[in-house]
Amino acid sequence: MKVAKIGEFGLLDRIIPRLGRRPDFLLIGPGDDAALWRPTPGWEQLITCDCLVEGVHFDTERMDFYSVGWRAMTANLSDIAAMGGVPRLAVVTLALPLDVESEHVDELVRGMVECGGTADCAIAGGDLSASGETLFISLTVSGEVEPGRVLTRSGAGAGNIICLSGNVGGSRVGLEVLMSGAGKNDYPASVERFLQPRPRIDLARRLARSLALTAMIDVSDGLVSDLGHICSMSGLGCRLRTADIVIDEEVVSWAGAMKKDPLEYILSSGEEYELLFTVSPEQAEIIKEFPEVRIIGEMTKAAERLIIDHNGSSSNIERQGWDHFLQ
Amino acid sequence: MKVAKIGEFGLLDRIIPRLGRRPDFLLIGPGDDAALWRPTPGWEQLITCDCLVEGVHFDTERMDFYSVGWRAMTANLSDIAAMGGVPRLAVVTLALPLDVESEHVDELVRGMVECGGTADCAIAGGDLSASGETLFISLTVSGEVEPGRVLTRSGAGAGNIICLSGNVGGSRVGLEVLMSGAGKNDYPASVERFLQPRPRIDLARRLARSLALTAMIDVSDGLVSDLGHICSMSGLGCRLRTADIVIDEEVVSWAGAMKKDPLEYILSSGEEYELLFTVSPEQAEIIKEFPEVRIIGEMTKAAERLIIDHNGSSSNIERQGWDHFLQ
Repeated sequence: MKVAKIGEFGLLDRIIPRLGRRPDFLLIGPGDDAALWRPTPGWEQLITCDCLVEGVHFDTERMDFYSVGWRAMTANLSDIAAMGGVPRLAVVTLALPLDVESEHVDELVRGMVECGGTADCAIAGGDLSASGETLFISLTVSGEVEPGRVLTRSGAGAGNIICLSGNVGGSRVGLEVLMSGAGKNDYPASVERFLQPRPRIDLARRLARSLALTAMIDVSDGLVSDLGHICSMSGLGCRLRTADIVIDEEVVSWAGAMKKDPLEYILSSGEEYELLFTVSPEQAEIIKEFPEVRIIGEMTKAAERLIIDHNGSSSNIERQGWDHFLQ
Repeated sequence: MKVAKIGEFGLLDRIIPRLGRRPDFLLIGPGDDAALWRPTPGWEQLITCDCLVEGVHFDTERMDFYSVGWRAMTANLSDIAAMGGVPRLAVVTLALPLDVESEHVDELVRGMVECGGTADCAIAGGDLSASGETLFISLTVSGEVEPGRVLTRSGAGAGNIICLSGNVGGSRVGLEVLMSGAGKNDYPASVERFLQPRPRIDLARRLARSLALTAMIDVSDGLVSDLGHICSMSGLGCRLRTADIVIDEEVVSWAGAMKKDPLEYILSSGEEYELLFTVSPEQAEIIKEFPEVRIIGEMTKAAERLIIDHNGSSSNIERQGWDHFLQ
């Protein structure tokens, strides 16, 4: 049934029971003017928001509503992870064209709730609105971190090693596979990476407990672009060694089919939600305890940002990654 | 200059310095993956979000961008006020069509910042995105309230008196004046009420200190609709006496010009951001200390929701106010 038939309050009656169990710290959930919750005594608070706009971030011809909801939640959870924190709760704004099916809204909500559930992040409230032609989703997540334990983009030191979790490039491959109508089953990991990326919350917390991390960011704009954020905010340069980056086979295979260099995907694919962080080189031994983490370069005093390729020759990093307004 | 020329990061460089002074409790503001802040020890946390969608909530032909930003902030501040809390900080999502002028974005931000400034609510971060045709703003505000002092919609008791601050109806008059192209200067209070409504944060805090309020809501959907929320959530009925509601002269004058009953405006105009609350009748004397507050009815055990008109005759309250999807 279309949302224009069911009405705002009818839709709320449908959504609220689907939000699942209310955690103990959430004292007042959806249905009042604001949600109320009890923070962990002594911890500091994190807050972040991210939106998905139909036609810009997604397209419901090629993406199911469940995945749209999942991706909206992941983007926020990953930001909390990158600060070293624990997500607690989310509030969500949905602006819906009147011809959206309420069953699709159910799926969107299910995607958000299930992704949030992987990190015990509850949906505490929100706002519903009509929209003309375009579906908008904006999610805000509140999280917490122990005092003095926050991780920023600005703390990297010269000589620090640069580390990356997992592999990157798959999100863009997944998108291109879906856009092209090519066999999804030939690129299952990439399609899943694009549709239902996993935020690295547990890994970020374990890393922060084991290592004296100096800076951290999640790969959302693209590896080169996000490393650039650490460089700018820390006032340093970097050397990125491509030979040390794990390259997923699906990325090699798809890049080959597209007659492109896999590095194009590795360096600029956004919405990967892997962790990119820096740490003093003395801690390199401890990093070996994390099989999903690779050392891929180091921070330098020089203002230069260099890529060292497989042959050892270096080139300056050019602007890569996503700018919403300059395309 | 259009945002398509200035770019996402260029626009951020322009917006961030306009956000004003960072309050002491805001440890990390815009520019990292999330904002970090230190909550007041022992207090509970409030969170709410509200969005404005171009073509649904506003129209930049008839509304200036400053007022759009102001209204987005007021809607959220007012929700925190209605819970009895103090706003602390906001995060904002802006999805902008590529042909929006960056000077208009400046004005939008100025409206949000100045409205937030009236309540010491800082903008701590946000997300910028492109949008196809529609400008979309979503704001989330975090606030705080002393433990056990939160005010909900659900605590009203039978026999409680119903109170309203200020007067209502002006917001819809202001909208209609602007839509009609009539002389704005003939309805200055209504136009200002529509363009730059004031959240009642201080009044709500003073009321909560002086009185044992049992339920509170802000008038955002419309007086009858919001009173209905208190009735539903408290499991009670109500009697609303229209003779006791202050009716603004501009509302009388505009309703007359439109050949309508001023009560139509009073009962259903939304986005008024006045406070509607209930309290035990023993406290009626204390209410006299608040010249801006009037007693306009009482809560009843019966399921009936009645309006008593100026002649003393009663009628059932019908559904009034705004449903985004049923129009």
